[in-house]
Amino acid sequence: MEKRVENIADMNVDFAQWYTDVVRKAEMAEYSETGGCIIYKPYGYAIWELIQKSLDDRLKKTGHENVYMPMLIPESLLQKEADHVEGFAPEVAWVTHGGSEKLQERFCIRPTSETLFCSHYANAIQSYRDLPKLYNQWCSVMRWEKTTRPFLRGREFLWQEGHTAHATAEESRSEALDILDTYVDISENVLAMPCIKGQKTEREKFAGALDTFTFESLMHDGKALQSGTTHDFGNKFAKAFGIQYLDKNNKQQHVHQSSWGISTRLIGAIIMVHGDNNGLVLPPYVAPIQVVIVPVASHKEGVVEKATELCEKLSKSVRVKLDNSDKKPGWKFAEYEMKGVPIRLEIGPKDIEQNQCVIARRDTGEKITIPLDNVENIITETLEAIHKNMYAKAKSRQDKNTHTATTLPQLKEILDSTPGFVKAMWCGDDSCELRIKEEATATSRCMPFEQEKVSDKCVVCEKPASHMVVWGRAY
Amino acid sequence: MEKRVENIADMNVDFAQWYTDVVRKAEMAEYSETGGCIIYKPYGYAIWELIQKSLDDRLKKTGHENVYMPMLIPESLLQKEADHVEGFAPEVAWVTHGGSEKLQERFCIRPTSETLFCSHYANAIQSYRDLPKLYNQWCSVMRWEKTTRPFLRGREFLWQEGHTAHATAEESRSEALDILDTYVDISENVLAMPCIKGQKTEREKFAGALDTFTFESLMHDGKALQSGTTHDFGNKFAKAFGIQYLDKNNKQQHVHQSSWGISTRLIGAIIMVHGDNNGLVLPPYVAPIQVVIVPVASHKEGVVEKATELCEKLSKSVRVKLDNSDKKPGWKFAEYEMKGVPIRLEIGPKDIEQNQCVIARRDTGEKITIPLDNVENIITETLEAIHKNMYAKAKSRQDKNTHTATTLPQLKEILDSTPGFVKAMWCGDDSCELRIKEEATATSRCMPFEQEKVSDKCVVCEKPASHMVVWGRAY
Repeated sequence: MEKRVENIADMNVDFAQWYTDVVRKAEMAEYSETGGCIIYKPYGYAIWELIQKSLDDRLKKTGHENVYMPMLIPESLLQKEADHVEGFAPEVAWVTHGGSEKLQERFCIRPTSETLFCSHYANAIQSYRDLPKLYNQWCSVMRWEKTTRPFLRGREFLWQEGHTAHATAEESRSEALDILDTYVDISENVLAMPCIKGQKTEREKFAGALDTFTFESLMHDGKALQSGTTHDFGNKFAKAFGIQYLDKNNKQQHVHQSSWGISTRLIGAIIMVHGDNNGLVLPPYVAPIQVVIVPVASHKEGVVEKATELCEKLSKSVRVKLDNSDKKPGWKFAEYEMKGVPIRLEIGPKDIEQNQCVIARRDTGEKITIPLDNVENIITETLEAIHKNMYAKAKSRQDKNTHTATTLPQLKEILDSTPGFVKAMWCGDDSCELRIKEEATATSRCMPFEQEKVSDKCVVCEKPASHMVVWGRAY
Repeated sequence: MEKRVENIADMNVDFAQWYTDVVRKAEMAEYSETGGCIIYKPYGYAIWELIQKSLDDRLKKTGHENVYMPMLIPESLLQKEADHVEGFAPEVAWVTHGGSEKLQERFCIRPTSETLFCSHYANAIQSYRDLPKLYNQWCSVMRWEKTTRPFLRGREFLWQEGHTAHATAEESRSEALDILDTYVDISENVLAMPCIKGQKTEREKFAGALDTFTFESLMHDGKALQSGTTHDFGNKFAKAFGIQYLDKNNKQQHVHQSSWGISTRLIGAIIMVHGDNNGLVLPPYVAPIQVVIVPVASHKEGVVEKATELCEKLSKSVRVKLDNSDKKPGWKFAEYEMKGVPIRLEIGPKDIEQNQCVIARRDTGEKITIPLDNVENIITETLEAIHKNMYAKAKSRQDKNTHTATTLPQLKEILDSTPGFVKAMWCGDDSCELRIKEEATATSRCMPFEQEKVSDKCVVCEKPASHMVVWGRAY
């Protein structure tokens, strides 16, 4: 059985087509009969499970608890916080009938669950002793998008949403900032994805938030991706929903809240940050298969036995798969390259004679011969090295594609010729941000926490600047 | 701070109220503003996570893969298999609008996902090499029930649904039977819940199935609970959806399929099988807190330190919580009793002096003093002993409440006076089953795999019997 020729588009020629090809040919997702919603296939879903585990472990260690709220929100509940309903009502799916009966009140499928958590907190929180509440939920949400792309923008996507309630304004703010750090930790140390972290402008912040924080990543084509956000609500929702507690001095106080989320969008980011013209390149710590063993000349005596023995040995420390099928080694090589498996391990009769095997790295293509006696250590070290190299490569590309601009024409010119992040100063006026949006078709990605002074003046109006902002064209 | 008096109803007087009281006072779930849908609170959700893990590990070991399908099903897709749509259409929630636009075709929120999996399989399966497909999905489903009870029957509940496709009729059948064994393994060895396993009658089988298999558990009040089911579809759905593969002889064949699911209903079963008049009693292997440490006279020097040290030590082998709050020990004792924590560990100044502590078992109330040096082993052994005792108690109650009947009046009389399972012979005619349903308000729970001959004749029509059936009144 020959491997079917599975050409994928050249990423430098047609990045969008390359992306779709990788998603489908690496068997991560497939289109469904439900328009705008994808099927998360085993390989794509397994990556999500690994991302979930890395975050869930961190959240549990820091005292967060998982809960599950209804997927339907009564229309009247969605409407309680004015900015929030304005932000979400235009893009929700409405349930109007249960069985054959028309409902008295419509329900929307959650686009996000602030309203449900707030309504619960209004009942559950009475005293300062009930605080903080550190709840998280793993679920899917629904937003009726017009144009969709697998993992990046879909009508339904998988995510987690954290919703916390605290006694003070300082606490809800530091929760939003701490969780952002947790996200960045995962981005860098699990997904090998560098990013810029900062605060969103008023225009770009979440509907109903006091402040929104974000981490932004740069894709291979120079476009930005908002990888995840955390929000400090202050007491805005608490006032709208009447969430109060009796403090130690017996006075009623409104709680302060945060919310935060990352989603399966991160899978899209992994593809677009690390992928190449041979397909997916997976960061080792979220690779469902970290090592694939391909026996060579497996009809020869002892090869399958040795490969099986090796697989069992390695399975104690890494996620390993032995591909023992009757496909040809060349077919298998191409298949696991497309699927971005970090290490391919080849073993044949000659290797066995010499007590060695060959490992090939997906990130560099490098092939080395290693002694079987030390295979476990070398594999573990190589996975670490792959992670580091992938991060370094992505970081150097991000740095190379981060420019500075001091005038609006320059900002536009950079984005037209060498897409990437553009640092430019801003006076803080929405009208200037809007002009950049309209004239350079770029959005403010964030006001980085690490500020630097690119110039003194706003890139648009030339008035004194208050912030350095990173701009970009985004997914 | 005194513990509030939290009376719960007497289970022998008002079992339904007792159940609701336990659900709410053990903080497992709460009502929501979305009618018929509950909020899974941290303690309830944590039990679900432990059930999930026990099944997910078993499924992965046997080659099953997790996927995620859209939550919405186009109306036309739901209608493809006649029996299936007839079974589910009356109780689905319909999405008719996206944002402000009326949709051209309605979508229902999945009540179960056979149709989505079948539609995917019709595209994804081409050759015998693509088989078997062993997919599973963790998600929530929606059924527009009129009357609901937390965990037992709700409009939205959490579950897993496995959907598999096989080359032969034998394979889909053995998959359905193997998974039933896996479920029973979890019921008995994780949840300490005995059950009867068998096959559903035609009347009680799943809409669209060839055969349905079930495991049925007996609740404290003598009512039966269908704890989970597996279905053999044969090639019924494959024919309706056109799922075919090219076999080794180059001939087109329809696949054979199975589906199977367990849900958060199992949490309801745990409550109703093991609970008592002091609240919840949790089987150790799904208890979010297996051991709670309550320091006594914690203001005395060294008590908190010793309790903390003990907690750290135990955390290596069990799920342990130290309650170091300023509530009184008596309040804490009642609290963790209500929450069904298997072992309470008390430690005070005198214990420390004598290098010992006291452990109290939730299942028996027994208190014993044990040496601190051997605390880890004793705790592990005690958790095992609690599991075994809980299983044995439930099994003996099930046996005691399983009766036999040879006439319909006798069957009814037993169910009226001593509710439980009733074994009775059946001729196989639906009309006889219907008479039992109408006259004894009982349903056939299953035709147990372990058949025994209670008599020769059908309990209704007195014609020769073909099966022994277990009957009961069910949730």
